Amino acid sequence: MKRIAVLTTGGDAPGMNPAIRSVVRYGINQKLEVMGVFRGWWGLINEELKVLDHRSVSGIINQGGTILKTARCAEFKTEEGMSRAYNTVKKYNIDGLVVIGGNGSFTAAHEFYKKYKVPVIGIPASIDNDVNGIDYTIGTDTAINTALDAIDKIRDTATSMERIFVVEVMGRNSGFIALTVALAGGCEDVIIPEKKLDLELICHDIVHGNLVGKMSWIIVVAEGAGKAEDIAKKITEITSLETRTVVLGHVQRGGRPTAVSRDLALHLGKSAVDCLLSGKTDIAVGLGGGKFAEIDFEVAIQKKELKIVNLFNLIRVLT
Amino acid sequence: MKRIAVLTTGGDAPGMNPAIRSVVRYGINQKLEVMGVFRGWWGLINEELKVLDHRSVSGIINQGGTILKTARCAEFKTEEGMSRAYNTVKKYNIDGLVVIGGNGSFTAAHEFYKKYKVPVIGIPASIDNDVNGIDYTIGTDTAINTALDAIDKIRDTATSMERIFVVEVMGRNSGFIALTVALAGGCEDVIIPEKKLDLELICHDIVHGNLVGKMSWIIVVAEGAGKAEDIAKKITEITSLETRTVVLGHVQRGGRPTAVSRDLALHLGKSAVDCLLSGKTDIAVGLGGGKFAEIDFEVAIQKKELKIVNLFNLIRVLT
Amino acid sequence: MKRIAVLTTGGDAPGMNPAIRSVVRYGINQKLEVMGVFRGWWGLINEELKVLDHRSVSGIINQGGTILKTARCAEFKTEEGMSRAYNTVKKYNIDGLVVIGGNGSFTAAHEFYKKYKVPVIGIPASIDNDVNGIDYTIGTDTAINTALDAIDKIRDTATSMERIFVVEVMGRNSGFIALTVALAGGCEDVIIPEKKLDLELICHDIVHGNLVGKMSWIIVVAEGAGKAEDIAKKITEITSLETRTVVLGHVQRGGRPTAVSRDLALHLGKSAVDCLLSGKTDIAVGLGGGKFAEIDFEVAIQKKELKIVNLFNLIRVLT
Amino acid sequence: MKRIAVLTTGGDAPGMNPAIRSVVRYGINQKLEVMGVFRGWWGLINEELKVLDHRSVSGIINQGGTILKTARCAEFKTEEGMSRAYNTVKKYNIDGLVVIGGNGSFTAAHEFYKKYKVPVIGIPASIDNDVNGIDYTIGTDTAINTALDAIDKIRDTATSMERIFVVEVMGRNSGFIALTVALAGGCEDVIIPEKKLDLELICHDIVHGNLVGKMSWIIVVAEGAGKAEDIAKKITEITSLETRTVVLGHVQRGGRPTAVSRDLALHLGKSAVDCLLSGKTDIAVGLGGGKFAEIDFEVAIQKKELKIVNLFNLIRVLT
Repeated sequence: MKRIAVLTTGGDAPGMNPAIRSVVRYGINQKLEVMGVFRGWWGLINEELKVLDHRSVSGIINQGGTILKTARCAEFKTEEGMSRAYNTVKKYNIDGLVVIGGNGSFTAAHEFYKKYKVPVIGIPASIDNDVNGIDYTIGTDTAINTALDAIDKIRDTATSMERIFVVEVMGRNSGFIALTVALAGGCEDVIIPEKKLDLELICHDIVHGNLVGKMSWIIVVAEGAGKAEDIAKKITEITSLETRTVVLGHVQRGGRPTAVSRDLALHLGKSAVDCLLSGKTDIAVGLGGGKFAEIDFEVAIQKKELKIVNLFNLIRVLT
Repeated sequence: MKRIAVLTTGGDAPGMNPAIRSVVRYGINQKLEVMGVFRGWWGLINEELKVLDHRSVSGIINQGGTILKTARCAEFKTEEGMSRAYNTVKKYNIDGLVVIGGNGSFTAAHEFYKKYKVPVIGIPASIDNDVNGIDYTIGTDTAINTALDAIDKIRDTATSMERIFVVEVMGRNSGFIALTVALAGGCEDVIIPEKKLDLELICHDIVHGNLVGKMSWIIVVAEGAGKAEDIAKKITEITSLETRTVVLGHVQRGGRPTAVSRDLALHLGKSAVDCLLSGKTDIAVGLGGGKFAEIDFEVAIQKKELKIVNLFNLIRVLT
Repeated sequence: MKRIAVLTTGGDAPGMNPAIRSVVRYGINQKLEVMGVFRGWWGLINEELKVLDHRSVSGIINQGGTILKTARCAEFKTEEGMSRAYNTVKKYNIDGLVVIGGNGSFTAAHEFYKKYKVPVIGIPASIDNDVNGIDYTIGTDTAINTALDAIDKIRDTATSMERIFVVEVMGRNSGFIALTVALAGGCEDVIIPEKKLDLELICHDIVHGNLVGKMSWIIVVAEGAGKAEDIAKKITEITSLETRTVVLGHVQRGGRPTAVSRDLALHLGKSAVDCLLSGKTDIAVGLGGGKFAEIDFEVAIQKKELKIVNLFNLIRVLT
Repeated sequence: MKRIAVLTTGGDAPGMNPAIRSVVRYGINQKLEVMGVFRGWWGLINEELKVLDHRSVSGIINQGGTILKTARCAEFKTEEGMSRAYNTVKKYNIDGLVVIGGNGSFTAAHEFYKKYKVPVIGIPASIDNDVNGIDYTIGTDTAINTALDAIDKIRDTATSMERIFVVEVMGRNSGFIALTVALAGGCEDVIIPEKKLDLELICHDIVHGNLVGKMSWIIVVAEGAGKAEDIAKKITEITSLETRTVVLGHVQRGGRPTAVSRDLALHLGKSAVDCLLSGKTDIAVGLGGGKFAEIDFEVAIQKKELKIVNLFNLIRVLT
């Protein structure tokens, strides 16, 4: 193995840059040449790539986003797209690929491997923490802290103006961020895709709370479980109480990665290169059960089940 | 003058707490008794108030929101509401009022003074910077930095994914926050209530920029100048480019006040008490032209004109 | 079991407040009465304690420090001190104790249990991460992020002025914080108590780096491995290059706890109460190997061994 | 005027980068070619400079430090150094210079102008706020907020452990930062170069405070007024109370510039170019009395007097 390539795909996540830094510098340390592919699969299809040296990744360890840029690429799902990507791999003598991204990225990587047998290792980076078999994806901790910071700020107004707030956080298929920030933010309730919404119960709690002097509420909702605005409207219908909404949105994607996101990224960059060097392929590296682990792509791309019952109950008990 | 009362009204703003701290402690230092009224005018109407001692304002200098809570109060606009409030003032022997709030709060305070001649001084606290004759209201600097922090984060994604973002910030009647953060955030364009929207021009810039390789855009819009979603839709219609939106909303209200917001609050708390002690009334204290000044409520509640031409041009030149 | 008491001892750590909140609210939920003891063991000796209700822990989830205050208490190490503490336990009918603190706190708790058989459970909270058998103590993640934030700032000056910096971080007996922030901060070298200092090697790297154009360096030193000032002096002696120092000190102790510190605290507060309710004692609860675990105090107070070789090498490879 | 050059000298300050961005982009907009000189005067002496285009200043608006790097340069104070710098100016056809820095930088610029009549405009950037006739230098607001953030964190420990802290902040000749953060941080006392230290008084307050139950103290000291460690020792000698120290040091220099620091930098960059274009020289641009102003270097480099009496008293009254 002489030359590898690294790319970032899917939504950007804070920590992708330190992951790139680690792949590049550790790769060079292991006598590899490392190429950076721009805009994910699109760059592989369109031959947008270049050799990255030690200095090219200076000063990025604390930067959000990705210097390699990222894109969603429908073309890579076609036979022609994949074939063109493979041509690039051959033309540039790329002996292995490191793909930094989430669930969707690994699905594509897995298909690419099955068809063309190019060695490929995945590094899980996605704020949604949506990679099965892995505790934490790169970026999740940063996104959670950003959302938590926002909730702490909203709490100031909720308390001062004695208002109900519905705060929508990221999580199309998963309530992971919602549950975590609801607990850490001391929020009164949480609505997630994994659990049937019982708005009557929430409203009952609010009305009952009001009677005993609890006037402010923050209800966190994962985007996959409903729109903040719809939920707020229903709460107002049922309780007759004014309800405000905040949709945190893309703010959660960016920013300086936290220590957890950076350290994870730096370790996994090295792991990915080590895997390629030892002939492994078709797997993601990650923290599983508190230890560094390797997970078959086939497993990693399965729907991740969230154990929520305890967490859900704890949030309600501590309110 | 032996006893004064302090209240916070309108939307909460970061820095209200240090302002309360200053009124209370400086008041006590000047041999006054200081009462805190809860929930703004509502508390004056409903006799919700109590004496605040030195210790009661400990540990709040760095807290957002207001320990006195705040509310909007329609009843105070009625003759009966005002009369009940005045009864409270008499019953508790309150010799002067300090009202911490924005434009609307001062309008109400002015009416109250005109009718009942209770000495009243305003401290401008409102994230909208909507008090005429005054450079900066308490809370504006904090809100601006919060919005700027969000824009820096959004920039990571805008750059990495090469996207157009429309970011809606606070400012129902004023483009002050929008202009300031657009400049400080290096944003490509800004849409404010004070200036007719020229969406054709913005779209022309985007399309032209795309041709020369500029792929990411952040357009800041003040809430009073349009909905982010509507503007994004139109941009997509005209340019055929995917456009994302973020509505920062209430996040901008809360959080630890910045040094500027705190120091302003602490100085103005003292100024307000000094004004009451020297027999002044019906005025707001504040920074005007870089110096501490006193502004008649009649002037303070006028619509504030924003000098925007230079700022607007600078934003576009520096992009 | 009807009544339990909670106290915080040793150095304060961010996350102690959410841990108190969890013990109190979950305890009440489990039909217990919960008393808060002030100033750690000192409060038990001197009968400084009171019943905490649901509302008494409102608004503290995002506050650093501890509302119960904390102190180091030599008297508790004497027979008389322990005996007086036990009298308080009897007098107030306290059926179990929750001790929030670090290594030293658990040593004292263990002695107390051995002598008086009062059920006692430890919650590991200490920025030093010095509790054996446990992955992370409450507060460590916050302290690490605070130190990392400082290092990112110092990097701006180190790069702009092309200087060498020696930055001293917390860690009297452990290089955990130093290693973690050195990796996450992209620091050039790290000096820890667990590894013999090879200043010649560091200086050789600096001189060699200078020759190839690398002009700025940040070397992290754990306080237990040397004084920043002494190390800086020696570097200047050997290399003749100006070297600056920063001692981060107590800044690392305070501040809003991160999501990791809060969630850990909230979970462990519940775990501690559950342990008491199920008759367990003389143990600490914590995350071990990524899972919630219970560790005998005898084990928890042993010196924690840090596996450093890989981490150490990774830091140097990625520089 | 066809070509200008920009350089940053002295200690780095957050906001230098947006100032560079503004000079470059506004300069280009005004049909000028803009060269960047590296490492301040040293780069002018050693011909280290290059043309900066629009893109060269992308993505730096929110970065601390300076992309042009900075240095202190003794050689520029010699006749030969100045002469070599002037040769570079002639060789590269530089028609005007923009110097971004503090008091010392402007002194050198003034000498250079007097000798060689090269048009030169200063932009005040220095965390010390040490430029006479100007309200605020670029970077001061950021440094103050960084110090304030640290003090808020230290407060958590001071309160929880009931300790006295002496916190040393920047300010060799000026108590500006110390006074501002002491007020905003709710600190109990402040020690500055402009006022004779009365340690007896401070200790008397501490002892008296202790008697009435006030157990925690934060005393801010400007570096020019004494070493934190010395002051802490004396306090312990007099009061017999344990006293801790924190020296904030270089952490205050770096980090994302605040909105105030950025907007000031962006405005002044434009102002500096406008001044050169209109034939002005030997002046600094800045905010004076709340308005944009031009100050002769001769005035700007005088010792800045701080009006402290009111501020000093307010800090003590509000404690």
